[in-house]
Amino acid sequence: MAELPDKRTQFIDWYLAVVEEAGLSDKRYGVKGMNVWTPYGFRARRNLDSVMVREIEATGSQAVEFPALIPETEFAKEKEHIQGFDSEVYWVTKGGSSPLDVNLVLRPTSETAMYPVFALWVRSHQDLPLNVYQIVNTFRYETKTTRPFLRVREIHFFEEHTCQVDEAAATARVASNLAAFARMAEAFALPFLAVRRPDWDKFAGAYYSIALDIPLGGGRTLQIGSVHHYRENFSGPYGIRYEAVDGSSRLVQQTTFGLSERLLGAILAVHGDRKGAVFPRAVAPFEVVVIPVPSSSAGDLPQRTAGEVAERLARHGLRVHLDAGPERPGAKYYHWELLGVPLRLEVGAREAAARTVTAVTRLGLKSSLPMDGLEEQVVAALAGFDRALAERALAEFRSAFALATSLDELRDSAVVRQLGWCGREECGHRIEEAVDGGLLGVPEGKPPVEAPLPGTCIVCGRTDGVRWALAGRPL
Amino acid sequence: MAELPDKRTQFIDWYLAVVEEAGLSDKRYGVKGMNVWTPYGFRARRNLDSVMVREIEATGSQAVEFPALIPETEFAKEKEHIQGFDSEVYWVTKGGSSPLDVNLVLRPTSETAMYPVFALWVRSHQDLPLNVYQIVNTFRYETKTTRPFLRVREIHFFEEHTCQVDEAAATARVASNLAAFARMAEAFALPFLAVRRPDWDKFAGAYYSIALDIPLGGGRTLQIGSVHHYRENFSGPYGIRYEAVDGSSRLVQQTTFGLSERLLGAILAVHGDRKGAVFPRAVAPFEVVVIPVPSSSAGDLPQRTAGEVAERLARHGLRVHLDAGPERPGAKYYHWELLGVPLRLEVGAREAAARTVTAVTRLGLKSSLPMDGLEEQVVAALAGFDRALAERALAEFRSAFALATSLDELRDSAVVRQLGWCGREECGHRIEEAVDGGLLGVPEGKPPVEAPLPGTCIVCGRTDGVRWALAGRPL
Repeated sequence: MAELPDKRTQFIDWYLAVVEEAGLSDKRYGVKGMNVWTPYGFRARRNLDSVMVREIEATGSQAVEFPALIPETEFAKEKEHIQGFDSEVYWVTKGGSSPLDVNLVLRPTSETAMYPVFALWVRSHQDLPLNVYQIVNTFRYETKTTRPFLRVREIHFFEEHTCQVDEAAATARVASNLAAFARMAEAFALPFLAVRRPDWDKFAGAYYSIALDIPLGGGRTLQIGSVHHYRENFSGPYGIRYEAVDGSSRLVQQTTFGLSERLLGAILAVHGDRKGAVFPRAVAPFEVVVIPVPSSSAGDLPQRTAGEVAERLARHGLRVHLDAGPERPGAKYYHWELLGVPLRLEVGAREAAARTVTAVTRLGLKSSLPMDGLEEQVVAALAGFDRALAERALAEFRSAFALATSLDELRDSAVVRQLGWCGREECGHRIEEAVDGGLLGVPEGKPPVEAPLPGTCIVCGRTDGVRWALAGRPL
Repeated sequence: MAELPDKRTQFIDWYLAVVEEAGLSDKRYGVKGMNVWTPYGFRARRNLDSVMVREIEATGSQAVEFPALIPETEFAKEKEHIQGFDSEVYWVTKGGSSPLDVNLVLRPTSETAMYPVFALWVRSHQDLPLNVYQIVNTFRYETKTTRPFLRVREIHFFEEHTCQVDEAAATARVASNLAAFARMAEAFALPFLAVRRPDWDKFAGAYYSIALDIPLGGGRTLQIGSVHHYRENFSGPYGIRYEAVDGSSRLVQQTTFGLSERLLGAILAVHGDRKGAVFPRAVAPFEVVVIPVPSSSAGDLPQRTAGEVAERLARHGLRVHLDAGPERPGAKYYHWELLGVPLRLEVGAREAAARTVTAVTRLGLKSSLPMDGLEEQVVAALAGFDRALAERALAEFRSAFALATSLDELRDSAVVRQLGWCGREECGHRIEEAVDGGLLGVPEGKPPVEAPLPGTCIVCGRTDGVRWALAGRPL
């Protein structure tokens, strides 16, 4: 196998090579941008999903599944929403050889599938909050260049939809979602930005949108999800009303929280290196790979010991793979590094005789672990690996931002720029032009570069209402 | 709530009422036959899926996911297959406002999605066997009356597809699949028939099909899945070839194994009773419900003890629900019986004072369990419940069959008939007419009614090649 392209200078080539060489996705399917989840890629996805499920269910959300096909009549009910999606949906127009009476949209997202039914489910304040989520595939007729996990036409998607009694409760749900995502991101060792998008860039139909952005270096960012506050923008058209404690009939306030398979792309993009993929423990298809190192003098002792090690770790609940194949140990090391396994255990004649194993993390930390109490040692080594991975990612994250005090600094910037913005749309568009990308918006909470609040707007020099904003180049 | 219809005399009304009253599926979605998986129904489905995953992965199968949309060009490659599905597929013909260059089929099943990629994955005998499965939704433009879980247009579906070196290996895979299903069915306490369908009733493109049929009483049967041997019927048109050990290029032999959400319908139909749903432990959304029984003299002791019980059981890994609502205990008992929870624990003043709980299984067995070692006692009570459920289902299964020695006995038969058949298609069709249903086929292994082999065909009286066959009315 050839060496991977350089990540810093040829990011996309490097990314595509990692996905392909590690066998995470097969893009040779007969429809562009609809890729095959391979056994290895599917394992990563399943682990990723289980972290999402764990964290969202901890907030009292319940899993549901709504149909994939949406009648045109329901799809068209919220005007801004339909305008936002009209040009990028797939249409089902025929069943068998007959045209359908009502054309069906393949869901691009599920507001218009769920909300007519929410109107039936919600009757009284006792039915609220209604917090439900689903993990399904969504579909976009994408016309731009497609990339595995980053821009595809069939998208593995997590979406929570909620109904709340009032705006304060909806705002609290937004905060709860951001906190849930922070816990997910911690499991993925993935630093992120929560950024309130400018009004002209919010989700079609939202009152406001908070994007979850991951800086990828070189001034690039990747939006992997978002949390939206809808107020009554959908509950109005869909008639989702409840009887309040005082007997009055009110519209619910709604929020949504979405995450796409881009999250897996971000994990690969942020953690990967010149040797290939690097998976945090929670996502790794295998947490540990065990490799026997044969030796002419030792008979099958290394193989037997490696088998014993793998069995013990599996019994301890770890995802472990024993690579007993005929390849040279060096070739196996190379292979499993490319595939991003957090911890490699080598068992040779020396180790087997001394009742130890040699442990090497995917970040290169080598140690000798005793067979006595090996399970706990391996778990500790994995925790140490995750910490080191998080630290490396955090250092990269910190170096991905810098202040800018003039529009000139935005041009060809190799970092995401933090700048003063007065909040006016006109100035926002000037910033976007300068950065040749997006005004990402106003960060929630502390901005990535700690600095005193800016005195003036980077464009107009006004001093009223100025806040920190971020400008970068969304991938 | 009104009483449920009688299961024996009004089976379908009873079934629909159970699904609706227990809130397992919501059919008020805007497309007929595309139903909403409610929170409660989704929990059952998730548990069902995890049994399928556990058992199929124990046989070395790996999870993958192929796209939902199949190009018409690939779909049309295997002639019999396309003829079998042509009239019942949904067609995607437009992306945004433009007609697509190549129309796309929403997968009715995934042979034509997977096999062009299998042709890329399989190169040498070392790549075999290729055993992969996916759990996805499939789509059928169903024109008959739809019923939740039994006949729907968007179908939750398990499908394994395999490539084998030769016909013997493929035949062995069929046997392995049947054994895996037997283990699943054991977890679901669900007796079943594996029946080799007559040639004219096999899957479109199959060499032979073994159906998995569940008798529902009254002579009715429900096919919930099947295992197919394809030989080279698909590998030929899709060019799935490998280099054999001797260097020759050979076509792979293929098999598939499919199970649909009908499995959940069958579990409801078989185990349910006049009080509502009855879930075997493996599928039950909640295995245990804990209900405090308030008493004026006891203060909040019942509530606190019930909370303690629920917490201990949850910590023990059980799916437990504490119903602390304001309704009367009797109303709660009624509700959770309708919902099919295997075990109810009642905690009143008497129990709390004596440090016991009253346990009542969904089949009505009542006992008193000590708080000391409660976890183990509850697990034992659940195991006892599963055994009793399996015994009840087996007794029903046994009574669902009877021998027939003349065509007259088939008419309006209230049981599935076991009869002698010479194997000729002409006689088969006569049997189908008489039973006003289907010649289900020839059972694999022992027939349901143990009896000496029949001497003559029930139709023509011939004696050569006669075997046991089954005739019933597929739902």
